[in-house]
Amino acid sequence: LPLAQALGYRDMPLDDLLIFNIAFGKTVPDISYNAIANLGYADVRFLAPVYVGDTLRSETQIIGLKENSSGKSGVVYVRSDTFRQDGEKVLTWARWVMISKREISTIGTAAASEKTLPDLPAFVTAENIVVPKQLRPAGLNAHDSGSTRLWDDYATGEVIDHPAGMTIDESQHTLATRLYQNNARVHFDAHHMATTPFGKRLVYGGHVISICRALSYDGLENVISIAAINAGSHVHPTFAGDTLYAKTQVLEKWALRPDLGALRLRLLGLKNLTAGEYALPADIAVPQLVLDLDYTVLLPRK
Amino acid sequence: LPLAQALGYRDMPLDDLLIFNIAFGKTVPDISYNAIANLGYADVRFLAPVYVGDTLRSETQIIGLKENSSGKSGVVYVRSDTFRQDGEKVLTWARWVMISKREISTIGTAAASEKTLPDLPAFVTAENIVVPKQLRPAGLNAHDSGSTRLWDDYATGEVIDHPAGMTIDESQHTLATRLYQNNARVHFDAHHMATTPFGKRLVYGGHVISICRALSYDGLENVISIAAINAGSHVHPTFAGDTLYAKTQVLEKWALRPDLGALRLRLLGLKNLTAGEYALPADIAVPQLVLDLDYTVLLPRK
Amino acid sequence: LPLAQALGYRDMPLDDLLIFNIAFGKTVPDISYNAIANLGYADVRFLAPVYVGDTLRSETQIIGLKENSSGKSGVVYVRSDTFRQDGEKVLTWARWVMISKREISTIGTAAASEKTLPDLPAFVTAENIVVPKQLRPAGLNAHDSGSTRLWDDYATGEVIDHPAGMTIDESQHTLATRLYQNNARVHFDAHHMATTPFGKRLVYGGHVISICRALSYDGLENVISIAAINAGSHVHPTFAGDTLYAKTQVLEKWALRPDLGALRLRLLGLKNLTAGEYALPADIAVPQLVLDLDYTVLLPRK
Repeated sequence: LPLAQALGYRDMPLDDLLIFNIAFGKTVPDISYNAIANLGYADVRFLAPVYVGDTLRSETQIIGLKENSSGKSGVVYVRSDTFRQDGEKVLTWARWVMISKREISTIGTAAASEKTLPDLPAFVTAENIVVPKQLRPAGLNAHDSGSTRLWDDYATGEVIDHPAGMTIDESQHTLATRLYQNNARVHFDAHHMATTPFGKRLVYGGHVISICRALSYDGLENVISIAAINAGSHVHPTFAGDTLYAKTQVLEKWALRPDLGALRLRLLGLKNLTAGEYALPADIAVPQLVLDLDYTVLLPRK
Repeated sequence: LPLAQALGYRDMPLDDLLIFNIAFGKTVPDISYNAIANLGYADVRFLAPVYVGDTLRSETQIIGLKENSSGKSGVVYVRSDTFRQDGEKVLTWARWVMISKREISTIGTAAASEKTLPDLPAFVTAENIVVPKQLRPAGLNAHDSGSTRLWDDYATGEVIDHPAGMTIDESQHTLATRLYQNNARVHFDAHHMATTPFGKRLVYGGHVISICRALSYDGLENVISIAAINAGSHVHPTFAGDTLYAKTQVLEKWALRPDLGALRLRLLGLKNLTAGEYALPADIAVPQLVLDLDYTVLLPRK
Repeated sequence: LPLAQALGYRDMPLDDLLIFNIAFGKTVPDISYNAIANLGYADVRFLAPVYVGDTLRSETQIIGLKENSSGKSGVVYVRSDTFRQDGEKVLTWARWVMISKREISTIGTAAASEKTLPDLPAFVTAENIVVPKQLRPAGLNAHDSGSTRLWDDYATGEVIDHPAGMTIDESQHTLATRLYQNNARVHFDAHHMATTPFGKRLVYGGHVISICRALSYDGLENVISIAAINAGSHVHPTFAGDTLYAKTQVLEKWALRPDLGALRLRLLGLKNLTAGEYALPADIAVPQLVLDLDYTVLLPRK
């Protein structure tokens, strides 16, 4: 709490990915409860802090549709906006899911006539990053975080092998996913999943992102918050019993204010393979790669 | 929170079954820590809302006793009342448990002389339902719940197959049961349970009720709260690894106020068998039936 | 809450061992992340209550060092102090860990020149026990705790076999350890642990202490708080699937105030062996002994 206030927040802000996962969960019943697969995210922007006690509400619009060549399924693109109880928009994001033809008509026949792909940015540019006005990066004391590395100390192209690993257990991922109010049956119904090619429950991709992000703290100690998620794909599925590791590559650097910079990062999530055992770009196709996330964080400048 | 206030609550009320399970847990050390079996509930009435920060206290009276013909065990009937810190009674309920003869004398020799069965109602009648005075059912926005079905839309005899399933893991049920402060050893002590006919830990019946009730939201979206539990039996035991499903039958309908009605429901909990695969009343004896609960809920009228 | 206030606290105080485990977790990244083993604790004193909303901060000093005869590893002794956001010291403790020679130099070359053992007390004496000034033991109502046994009722040498057992699951111990912000890889990284002689994740010793302490409530119902931990060793490792039991021996009794006394206790933690099956001192070397803790608690006097 004292650190949060030194940074200019009125209270401890909620973790950005927790906000994202909760907001995401709210869209599951309408959009992806019966989806075949969650294909990707784009243009995810965090616009304002959220505190304990706030109530979030999400609105989703269908922004595009593409039928698969088989004609049996299609890809639906949606844009969701999440608001605080005071009406302030705290998060906006686009995602696309593969759903069956029958589901497409359930979601909305109006949308089904749109055959165009939405215009989504490859990544959120520096101009489109929203920095909370009250943020005072100088309030961060490098002594508290355990590292003195600030924005200036990271180089484009630099690769960081995060040392820690975390094993995911069945109860742990279902507890987290329940917290997000995400009720997709692929995560909870083992009896049903036994009849699918997976044979067991899948770990929710947003939980994989959260775990890999947490593993990446060791090496990115002074990140203040996530400004944007530019793109992301769940390359292979994660199951209970898998141990996750994380590797980060610095893609771009932007100076936003005299006291604040942004790093665009590529976060690779690996299962049962340590960051050091994985080489970029040679190993891009290994089955142990579970996450390839392109996101942008804020750090203090020197 | 905005929804809770629109309904007339001063804050988000605690889930009714959480209140029941916590109140129940408080009675375990005195009543059922070493019980052979929890046999049933009756006349459970929810009388006032409970909020985060409230402190609950329970009082239990022995209201009846019946010795089994073997003479080695007996059934004890108790009535418990749960109070808020301000003295308001929030919950009252009766239950009966099978205990060994030695335990009977521990619980109270005065009670042991009573050989009469208590007079318990088959179900809580409409006149005995307590509706919180401040409740404003019109505050419920069907848009928020995802369904427009109100009290008027349900028909006596109607059957609802709830689609979702939830797999119970060892850590998850023990965590929940710990939250309820229920410390009965059948749920926590695997070393001991390996020596019993079950061979493993049992899932607490109150947790089974909570899970089945949660699964039943999909189909009963606009239920405001639980008014009463009329009767309930844990037909077969539930273990970690089982996937629960729920099926609901509408037993009775009562109009309570011009803006509020009650539905008396039968909630069937199934393990490793979907609601659609289970037919009433033919399958009443299948081993997958884990819960047969008779309870009453409040819904807005049109 | 009403009970906490009757005892003189302004709010419900946090569990002492939760404070200890959280404070301990804060020292893991600097001290024991890569430690070979956590060897012991001494002179742990609880100095002031901590409430929900407080922020804790820890400082650690290296107070001693001993190289092992092999020369490949050494034992580092540290003293840590934990402070509330208002600067009040709430906890002080010493511990020692076995670390590799390479790690010793990482922790501090200045320290590496100290070859002396610190002067640590065998136990915290009655004069060094800090009793919160506002504590009113008379506020404890024996009716609430379920037992009338106060300080006067325990005898030196007395042995208590606590009846309850608790099975530890993988998700449960990792969730608790995560709550303590203890990120030591031996608890979380199953992929790595599969390559070690253990073959699997270890349960964090502080969690074993918390569980055994919780099991010991049944027999020590009117303990108000922990005043000190005098010494402790994790005799054998605990793994997921083990069921823990607890046994207590009363070592010493001290009258501190006319209304308050202290008991110095020995808490023995056992895995897959009930308290009744374990005999002191004959069984001191059995592999089921996982914890041997010497600690001091406060109880009301008659």
